[in-house]
Amino acid sequence: MIHRIDRWLTELPPPSDPDPAGAAAVQELFGGRFGEMSTFMNYTMQSFNFRNRAGARPFYELVANIAAEEFGHIELVSATINTMLTGASPAESRPDPSTTPLGGLKDVWKNPHHWLDGGAATQVQDSRGLPWTGDNVVNSGDLIGDLTWNYFLETGARNGKLRVYEMCDHPAARALTGYLLVRGGVHQVAYARALEKLTGSDLTRMFPAPRIPTDKIPECRPHLDAGEHAKLYRFSPSDYHRIAEVFNGPHPETGDELQVVDDDPSTRPPAQDLPAQTAVFAPSWAPEEIEEIAQNLREKAGG
Amino acid sequence: MIHRIDRWLTELPPPSDPDPAGAAAVQELFGGRFGEMSTFMNYTMQSFNFRNRAGARPFYELVANIAAEEFGHIELVSATINTMLTGASPAESRPDPSTTPLGGLKDVWKNPHHWLDGGAATQVQDSRGLPWTGDNVVNSGDLIGDLTWNYFLETGARNGKLRVYEMCDHPAARALTGYLLVRGGVHQVAYARALEKLTGSDLTRMFPAPRIPTDKIPECRPHLDAGEHAKLYRFSPSDYHRIAEVFNGPHPETGDELQVVDDDPSTRPPAQDLPAQTAVFAPSWAPEEIEEIAQNLREKAGG
Amino acid sequence: MIHRIDRWLTELPPPSDPDPAGAAAVQELFGGRFGEMSTFMNYTMQSFNFRNRAGARPFYELVANIAAEEFGHIELVSATINTMLTGASPAESRPDPSTTPLGGLKDVWKNPHHWLDGGAATQVQDSRGLPWTGDNVVNSGDLIGDLTWNYFLETGARNGKLRVYEMCDHPAARALTGYLLVRGGVHQVAYARALEKLTGSDLTRMFPAPRIPTDKIPECRPHLDAGEHAKLYRFSPSDYHRIAEVFNGPHPETGDELQVVDDDPSTRPPAQDLPAQTAVFAPSWAPEEIEEIAQNLREKAGG
Amino acid sequence: MIHRIDRWLTELPPPSDPDPAGAAAVQELFGGRFGEMSTFMNYTMQSFNFRNRAGARPFYELVANIAAEEFGHIELVSATINTMLTGASPAESRPDPSTTPLGGLKDVWKNPHHWLDGGAATQVQDSRGLPWTGDNVVNSGDLIGDLTWNYFLETGARNGKLRVYEMCDHPAARALTGYLLVRGGVHQVAYARALEKLTGSDLTRMFPAPRIPTDKIPECRPHLDAGEHAKLYRFSPSDYHRIAEVFNGPHPETGDELQVVDDDPSTRPPAQDLPAQTAVFAPSWAPEEIEEIAQNLREKAGG
Amino acid sequence: MIHRIDRWLTELPPPSDPDPAGAAAVQELFGGRFGEMSTFMNYTMQSFNFRNRAGARPFYELVANIAAEEFGHIELVSATINTMLTGASPAESRPDPSTTPLGGLKDVWKNPHHWLDGGAATQVQDSRGLPWTGDNVVNSGDLIGDLTWNYFLETGARNGKLRVYEMCDHPAARALTGYLLVRGGVHQVAYARALEKLTGSDLTRMFPAPRIPTDKIPECRPHLDAGEHAKLYRFSPSDYHRIAEVFNGPHPETGDELQVVDDDPSTRPPAQDLPAQTAVFAPSWAPEEIEEIAQNLREKAGG
Amino acid sequence: MIHRIDRWLTELPPPSDPDPAGAAAVQELFGGRFGEMSTFMNYTMQSFNFRNRAGARPFYELVANIAAEEFGHIELVSATINTMLTGASPAESRPDPSTTPLGGLKDVWKNPHHWLDGGAATQVQDSRGLPWTGDNVVNSGDLIGDLTWNYFLETGARNGKLRVYEMCDHPAARALTGYLLVRGGVHQVAYARALEKLTGSDLTRMFPAPRIPTDKIPECRPHLDAGEHAKLYRFSPSDYHRIAEVFNGPHPETGDELQVVDDDPSTRPPAQDLPAQTAVFAPSWAPEEIEEIAQNLREKAGG
Repeated sequence: MIHRIDRWLTELPPPSDPDPAGAAAVQELFGGRFGEMSTFMNYTMQSFNFRNRAGARPFYELVANIAAEEFGHIELVSATINTMLTGASPAESRPDPSTTPLGGLKDVWKNPHHWLDGGAATQVQDSRGLPWTGDNVVNSGDLIGDLTWNYFLETGARNGKLRVYEMCDHPAARALTGYLLVRGGVHQVAYARALEKLTGSDLTRMFPAPRIPTDKIPECRPHLDAGEHAKLYRFSPSDYHRIAEVFNGPHPETGDELQVVDDDPSTRPPAQDLPAQTAVFAPSWAPEEIEEIAQNLREKAGG
Repeated sequence: MIHRIDRWLTELPPPSDPDPAGAAAVQELFGGRFGEMSTFMNYTMQSFNFRNRAGARPFYELVANIAAEEFGHIELVSATINTMLTGASPAESRPDPSTTPLGGLKDVWKNPHHWLDGGAATQVQDSRGLPWTGDNVVNSGDLIGDLTWNYFLETGARNGKLRVYEMCDHPAARALTGYLLVRGGVHQVAYARALEKLTGSDLTRMFPAPRIPTDKIPECRPHLDAGEHAKLYRFSPSDYHRIAEVFNGPHPETGDELQVVDDDPSTRPPAQDLPAQTAVFAPSWAPEEIEEIAQNLREKAGG
Repeated sequence: MIHRIDRWLTELPPPSDPDPAGAAAVQELFGGRFGEMSTFMNYTMQSFNFRNRAGARPFYELVANIAAEEFGHIELVSATINTMLTGASPAESRPDPSTTPLGGLKDVWKNPHHWLDGGAATQVQDSRGLPWTGDNVVNSGDLIGDLTWNYFLETGARNGKLRVYEMCDHPAARALTGYLLVRGGVHQVAYARALEKLTGSDLTRMFPAPRIPTDKIPECRPHLDAGEHAKLYRFSPSDYHRIAEVFNGPHPETGDELQVVDDDPSTRPPAQDLPAQTAVFAPSWAPEEIEEIAQNLREKAGG
Repeated sequence: MIHRIDRWLTELPPPSDPDPAGAAAVQELFGGRFGEMSTFMNYTMQSFNFRNRAGARPFYELVANIAAEEFGHIELVSATINTMLTGASPAESRPDPSTTPLGGLKDVWKNPHHWLDGGAATQVQDSRGLPWTGDNVVNSGDLIGDLTWNYFLETGARNGKLRVYEMCDHPAARALTGYLLVRGGVHQVAYARALEKLTGSDLTRMFPAPRIPTDKIPECRPHLDAGEHAKLYRFSPSDYHRIAEVFNGPHPETGDELQVVDDDPSTRPPAQDLPAQTAVFAPSWAPEEIEEIAQNLREKAGG
Repeated sequence: MIHRIDRWLTELPPPSDPDPAGAAAVQELFGGRFGEMSTFMNYTMQSFNFRNRAGARPFYELVANIAAEEFGHIELVSATINTMLTGASPAESRPDPSTTPLGGLKDVWKNPHHWLDGGAATQVQDSRGLPWTGDNVVNSGDLIGDLTWNYFLETGARNGKLRVYEMCDHPAARALTGYLLVRGGVHQVAYARALEKLTGSDLTRMFPAPRIPTDKIPECRPHLDAGEHAKLYRFSPSDYHRIAEVFNGPHPETGDELQVVDDDPSTRPPAQDLPAQTAVFAPSWAPEEIEEIAQNLREKAGG
Repeated sequence: MIHRIDRWLTELPPPSDPDPAGAAAVQELFGGRFGEMSTFMNYTMQSFNFRNRAGARPFYELVANIAAEEFGHIELVSATINTMLTGASPAESRPDPSTTPLGGLKDVWKNPHHWLDGGAATQVQDSRGLPWTGDNVVNSGDLIGDLTWNYFLETGARNGKLRVYEMCDHPAARALTGYLLVRGGVHQVAYARALEKLTGSDLTRMFPAPRIPTDKIPECRPHLDAGEHAKLYRFSPSDYHRIAEVFNGPHPETGDELQVVDDDPSTRPPAQDLPAQTAVFAPSWAPEEIEEIAQNLREKAGG
């Protein structure tokens, strides 16, 4: 079970120039086979399905805890896409539909569901517009096999983030990928370390994969300076204390000592609110009607 | 973002007689279009994509908070499937593969991925073995439209739970559906109430849907007796205080006053551990090797 | 546009012993790639998309008119499946769900959506449980190419019908396939004839395909005796008078003269009603409630 | 079974400037999950699968009859797409393929199958190019559940039509959506009314959904003026006389009395013919060859 | 089993101006339902699954041998796509990712996986970006049925090649389609001839289909001049000697005598090497590191 | 390009008792995401798409050459499935379809397409009956990433083979998996070795994965005794001479020296012929007709 907190794992910039094509590319990081839905659901399922947890506890906890962080990642990717889509259609309430308010998007759209099915918002799809599918989850039950996959999955995810970074210069996409590259790198290290503990192999020289060093990415540097590349947060008020038994030793690239840190949500920035996009009725063609209802509800509740 | 807690929302019985065919049926409640992956991801996406949260806050919070409960539901369905699959293959460590340890499963109706791809464990699939897909998420952005869908989605989910209940008499399946029918009913009421607040319609007489009263299900009764049908838990240490502005008034079937309750995880039962299934290498063909490694790690960590 | 008539193209027997496994097989004839959804939608789309109808009218009309017959075929396949599913669960109103009324279906080979998602009724799926997809439609626009495909599609459909016939001895399945083999044979001939008119090739010796003669199937014989194998019905009160320009000459197998006949619905048997299946809430757990409401509506309407 | 008539339910303008990107958007109204294939096949399947029709006849007839109208809607959407695609490639017969006659489309296409697989014509796909699938059909068998879904499906369909309207100013797209918004609105009302009769709830205040009033759409107004928003046509020469028992009372938005009208095809405009698109061989690279053959056939038939 | 040879079946031009949109279109010829993956896998599966080969040997061999040629076709289509993608991103080693090296592609991409998931390289997808699927294989087992399908499949493939030819003027696309049109035409003839032998029908007048004569395509002419349209190569060092029993007689369009020729790989051009695309890490962000390693391996091996 | 040879890579037993349920399970090794279609197409695409082959030649050759072996593996899996399906329906020519010759297959767990769509033969599907898809191919272009995936893919494949071995005791399934486990193990080693050469990591201790030693499988032992676990065959008459630069050193489990061997097809057993299955028209309902035609063709050819 989870408790949910309306904060983001990192800061993202507010909407600026809309970038629908860029948003369609960032969808790969949401619903692509190596996107965050995949990391989230792979680790979640592996933790749900983990047998003999008692006998393999630090490994169970590592997977279960990283799954929790990944929820925060799908939230961030979604916020990025939504930020990039904001402003591409007229902003005023009760827009006149006969003025073709979405006309400017007709010839340029990349993901049509951003506009025709959804509300200028994230789809559970990849950059092609294909839906994420449960067949993106690998969970044989065999711990070494699953950890090998997880290590590769993070490698594939890193590959995708780098490519999106290279394609999109929208500030939100840059902030997102800068952060995710660092955090995904931590997970890549964590699974490598787990494999090392279980088999005795030394995977240190596999890093970085792909071969482009993280510190070549300017947007990664603040996070590297903050030591985020070497910290695994414990995302639980009560559990997962044994992950430090696996996540320890020197970072394969920097040599910094790996450490486990209790997550403190109060240090995370609040989730940001994005403005209504009335041409796609999000949250309404006439959002002030909802605002008035909500205001009345508050008053009725003595708020 | 979330914090994760290794507790279950309700108690489930331990493994008894294995029931692979039943487990394949229960997959509908996991990865079916009206299963818990769908409720979880519909509400999660709707909350991520919610625009003008400030102006529509109690509605945003309702959706975001129910999403959090649904994570607990996918966990419970998964635990049920895994319980039903436990014991269908030999239990001893280092089983001799040439004795056809999975032979008894070959000719029976089942989900073949439970055995050939997964580790006697939940797949992100429905009862047909088809993967859950992102196209199961509906999120137009239009709040009234999305809430109408949510109301129907819970109706469809109730339909599916009743059918699985009627097909499976395995104690775990019964305990699961007994609980989910009550909790899903709460969500059905919550979305109906939200629609009523937003439009002024009265949906009371739509209940129950399907028309079979919840108290006809013996496994629902303990939860009804505990008032679980009228409580919406707040699954956040810090947020979603305004959901009570929507979730209030009499329950449409029982007349009990609807109430919002702060979730206290310490009152929830701990997540249970299921035994290794060595014929499918979960977590290994020889799990005692992992146990020994884990024991060494603990000692090294001074545990 | 269409007008709809509540009659069946041929008689089917009433429910007898239920046969869920057989019904799952018959789904191939509904939603399989060579099933009736495919023939219906292939010809429908080809007719919608037909360009320069004026210049190619008899060919346009042939395709458009056969499309209309195929609607009657999906109706018949559906009725067959529903007949075969009838009686597999208890019949009484308000059944007690805790008696596991669907338990007898749990361990047998079947289509689980017949019970867990649908109401003991046809799914838009094939025998694997996979949904029919729009990619089953071939419509290049090139008339000769499309007719070649149509000829092959009917060959594939004949193949499937023969196999279902060989697998299922349920009276409804037998009646269905006996009829469809004869009618599909007519369409196979029609498309061959169209190709012959357009290219000058003689396809007579391609028949029968597969090589099993239709009159080897006892359930085909009454329809052969009635000359159904040589008649193309005109399914329109006003259009498609030129199809006889294509559909003429001797039948490739029997030598009978091909003829076009105006369809007269009053000679078709009325669509049959199938009883409620209350364990799957079709049309309700307590259908007498609906009956009473309908009775009241009739009275209110002065009926 | 059906009879087919080569008329359109409403008038559409002839081809003007081609608009391939717009046509790709309109595909959402054809093969999208809330498009007309979905409404057509949902109601068709629900009517095929309807059990105990005798006891629930007015509800059965309502669904069966609306299904018949929806066939006319897929025909209209298809005609619109085909109109918008007409003229995007050279028109003359026997075009020289080495002049790159489709070259102007290479960098602008949205749906490549319009050109590379199909003949400048409608695909059974949505705006992403993904095929329509049978999993878009919801049919639990439970009448109240299915009607609730139908009500929502029409809400989703209205949402999609409004968005396409806002994106596309091509005259055909505008004429189409103006008409469909009015007719879809009738179906939305019809299902709401059916739910009201069955449960006693009053759904009047749910309208309009989405919240944009239909009369804000100029292309809707002629149809509103003609009272089309309050009429349900009976699309059968012989059946569905009891639908008026459900479809009655005041229209939720306008207060006009709802009425059932016998459809008279002779008042509908004839289906229009679209010109050959020879670069995609529709109906041929050299259509005059087919014209000559057809002319010969007519003469041979004494036409 | 196979032996593989690093040669191409025909010459392709080296990279020139990149054409990502054209490459996305050519994907239809790779992974489209009528593309080369389909022809390759249809004939491969039909040959694997062929029963009673002894009794039907020349037909078995025809299918098995054409399957072997099709492997060479998927290789050529892939090489064409890769050629068209070359040069669309910066060429130097260790490119600075923060300079948005893929930025120029953001607004113009057609297949995003060319850049975000793959390495400027062929995807197992069609022009929509949808993956090729095993359901594109038709193999009923019935020889006449399967050959009828194969004949149609080649007709569909010819249709697709002509359309891609009409859309793309990139030299590689032109060279590819010029060659494939001729070779696919040979296969179309081969299957027609097999049907003629088996049934006695004469399909000569079905050619050409579509109706555009091959010699209207300038890029086909060199291959026609070389007689490639009338030769079936035997792609085996040891088998398939009986194909000439089927593939004989006059070519249906040109009247040239059909002939079977032993393939001699040494007459085929060597497969060409395409340069690294370092912005997508193909084969690395810093390919000189791999070059150095490979050089060391060679030296160590005494190379 | 390839040359094809009608030999199998290893011997398989002739048909014995049919085992349709087992054959449905073996489909996972054909069309499952970790099946042989996946290994074949992953390596084939990686070799087609390999850039800067000159600079990375031994790695290119390793991948290209293993791809060639994998074609032989899909052939073997297919032959196994077909063997297991042989005899499940009556054998005589011109069987009477009205005797329900496929009736015995109706109620058992199976792949329905083996009988209703195919000819008692392999489908391009997994054990669920879902088609293999191009999205099973991973090919980022980044060599180290792709090799990491390949290593994992072979691990997943080994996992699947072991499970099928444990479920199926049919002699053909046993012979197949015994052979494939050994050969797949060679590929697992080859990719590990390639990663070691490229990165300097030592992956020796990752073996075996899953942790069950290959020599525990009796059907593997003859192949181990023959040294097959340490040999990489060169499947080309002319190319791939540099693979020995990568594939060398001691085997991680046995310590045997790895070696590259030129494949000699004449030492491989001939591909076996399986008997007609006339109830599914493979190759015909009346195969003697084809035999006679083939005999005539031979005579006409002077054979």
